[in-house]
Amino acid sequence: MNLEIINIGDELLIGQVVNTNASYIALQLNKIGINVSKITTIGDKGKDIETALDLALQNADSVLITGGLGPTKDDITKSVLAHYFNTTLMEDSKTLEKVRNYFLQRGLPLTETNRRQALLPQNANIIDNKYGTAAAMCFEKNGKLVFSLPGVPFEMKEIMPEVLKILQEHYRLSFIEHKTLLVSGIGESFLSDIIESWEDALADFIHLAYLPSAGLIRLRLSAYGDDKDLITKELNKQIDKLLPVIKDYFIGFEQNNISQAIAERLMKLNLTLSTAESCTGGNIAHLLTLNAGISSIFKGSVVAYSNEVKQQVLGVKADILQRFGAVSEQTAIAMAKGIISLLRTDYAIATTGIAGPSGGTAEKPVGTIWICVCDSNNHILTANPFFPTNRENFIERASNEAMRLLLKLMENNGH
Amino acid sequence: MNLEIINIGDELLIGQVVNTNASYIALQLNKIGINVSKITTIGDKGKDIETALDLALQNADSVLITGGLGPTKDDITKSVLAHYFNTTLMEDSKTLEKVRNYFLQRGLPLTETNRRQALLPQNANIIDNKYGTAAAMCFEKNGKLVFSLPGVPFEMKEIMPEVLKILQEHYRLSFIEHKTLLVSGIGESFLSDIIESWEDALADFIHLAYLPSAGLIRLRLSAYGDDKDLITKELNKQIDKLLPVIKDYFIGFEQNNISQAIAERLMKLNLTLSTAESCTGGNIAHLLTLNAGISSIFKGSVVAYSNEVKQQVLGVKADILQRFGAVSEQTAIAMAKGIISLLRTDYAIATTGIAGPSGGTAEKPVGTIWICVCDSNNHILTANPFFPTNRENFIERASNEAMRLLLKLMENNGH
Repeated sequence: MNLEIINIGDELLIGQVVNTNASYIALQLNKIGINVSKITTIGDKGKDIETALDLALQNADSVLITGGLGPTKDDITKSVLAHYFNTTLMEDSKTLEKVRNYFLQRGLPLTETNRRQALLPQNANIIDNKYGTAAAMCFEKNGKLVFSLPGVPFEMKEIMPEVLKILQEHYRLSFIEHKTLLVSGIGESFLSDIIESWEDALADFIHLAYLPSAGLIRLRLSAYGDDKDLITKELNKQIDKLLPVIKDYFIGFEQNNISQAIAERLMKLNLTLSTAESCTGGNIAHLLTLNAGISSIFKGSVVAYSNEVKQQVLGVKADILQRFGAVSEQTAIAMAKGIISLLRTDYAIATTGIAGPSGGTAEKPVGTIWICVCDSNNHILTANPFFPTNRENFIERASNEAMRLLLKLMENNGH
Repeated sequence: MNLEIINIGDELLIGQVVNTNASYIALQLNKIGINVSKITTIGDKGKDIETALDLALQNADSVLITGGLGPTKDDITKSVLAHYFNTTLMEDSKTLEKVRNYFLQRGLPLTETNRRQALLPQNANIIDNKYGTAAAMCFEKNGKLVFSLPGVPFEMKEIMPEVLKILQEHYRLSFIEHKTLLVSGIGESFLSDIIESWEDALADFIHLAYLPSAGLIRLRLSAYGDDKDLITKELNKQIDKLLPVIKDYFIGFEQNNISQAIAERLMKLNLTLSTAESCTGGNIAHLLTLNAGISSIFKGSVVAYSNEVKQQVLGVKADILQRFGAVSEQTAIAMAKGIISLLRTDYAIATTGIAGPSGGTAEKPVGTIWICVCDSNNHILTANPFFPTNRENFIERASNEAMRLLLKLMENNGH
């Protein structure tokens, strides 16, 4: 079963908004065995919407549209779809009540513009939007379902479970199972080389995808078919074969990133963590705190962007900063020891480096970083990778590498 | 002049990678007056690539493809394009040398897999990739240019300036000018209402786009045409008319987010900043430190995820935490005062709230937040917005709202 996604919005074509909806929707659909065959992004133009919908209905079994459902003039999806499916817009009293309440709760009046949100196509199945005023819709044409969802990401996310339910009921889906292995510390091509013979011997119904991001690779194995038991058995067999080959780089199953791996492991063991961040600027703390429930084990962080803070809050000695510099192994160690004794945690991570674009020297160019991780028993690991890239990518890679080093220390400790 | 983007990669269709390339490329193209008419995302399948390319060449003047240029087996773009443009792949000795050096510098061997990166189509114009081994290519067909770029974002970003140069030389482009106004503290529909009569009176060659994200709206005005002076004059005239209407919400021109507005303003005035973050978990520090050069004015942050850290590092009194709770106006004030005296900065931001999904109570449900901003002269502003949404969105909106409150205090101070 193939589905095409159509994302509507001038903001996507002029590049001021990143299309995070497409990946979120594709991930959800994949999990229930729906293959996304194409994603098309177009502007808020009636003709483009109709052409894209024509094409998608020719090639796919179902279509999911996002965007263009707001109350402002540039949003035309609803009226274009009403025309496409030969119906008219009518004010829906139940929806009007909902829209009125939405603004009432926020102490705001119901304007004429917002009242338009209650105008809905007569032949569409309406899906409730808990977080916003734009109702989602489901049309049917020749047995194919066409969904229209709001483009605001968190509104769309709330509506997706209902969309998945409708899709599962309407289509007979073949079984699909995924296993994702998070791998770190090896480049894509080297990983490909060491698993080549294993990959070549995979059965036809198993597909392997490399999903690299800054310093990480997710290996995704997907098995399709009708015999659930056969698929699961073969998938597990292949994973058992793969694990010994990648054991030096394997971090965990079904984890999107290292912060999730750390969060899950520490929460299970009830061990606490703190970070002292210079060049990563709070990003490690940010990544860790995206994990729900982490407040039980993550005590906090000191972002020490200036030497003053390194000295006064983390207790890094002026002598160390002077002799070795702020970006040095000695400073990284002093920062890690400083934060672990300040916040009294079981583990700590410290980073100091030069994110650029300025601030580099011949001896310590932009991209230089020192990382130190330590535990409350004074075990220490340091690393000095080099990420000569742009500022944003440097921060991302440095954060991942620092968290990877923590996992290494935890493994050394049997955690 | 219209261009279509084709992003190739199974990882985009199964949703494990967000397509950030499309928006980056679209933004760059827009700036030189190229209109992106469509973005198509497809998998690593030869037939899909050829079909997408056929369609794009029918409808657009130029095509830009990303992805599928890696050395692994799933990457087939290069050979598909060689076939499409009736040419063959040959090993290029200069590129081979570059690939060899790339691995040599990193202390790695040149494997057979990586050697394949030096195979290039004979009739393509090769564009150098500074950061990776996948060369970018430019083909020409019936006067239309087709670019193929690597999908790794920071490699693609390094190559784009050269692509823009080639496009500018090849096509005669009509002039385009954009002005973006960052607006905060008002919903999209309310903004639309107050600027309606201004919007209705805009000239035909000026297009307005609303670009909302968490708690922010960017208003983008784009003017197209051949008479550069006329366009610039009319654009400025319209902005002069608009500013008084939106003055309560206007933050700045050409700024993507509030952290950039804060960074620019503080750096100009040489005023320092610190943050004390509970529920935002370091995200404000992270957003601030994405701005290059901010180390001159951002001293650091204490992420106080536990009460212990609030007390011991920020000096929040146990009595306050007990009487009012960690999520209270009093605690937010004590945190802000604590960080400003600890790091001795001119300004400080503090946040404390319940990001969820758990931890809420009847009195303080998930989504509750207290924000305090203060300056070194003991001026204080607090706010208590409510963001009943998911964890990630809560953190984003809370961070933006806290930074917005800081801008308000700075404005009160004439900064």
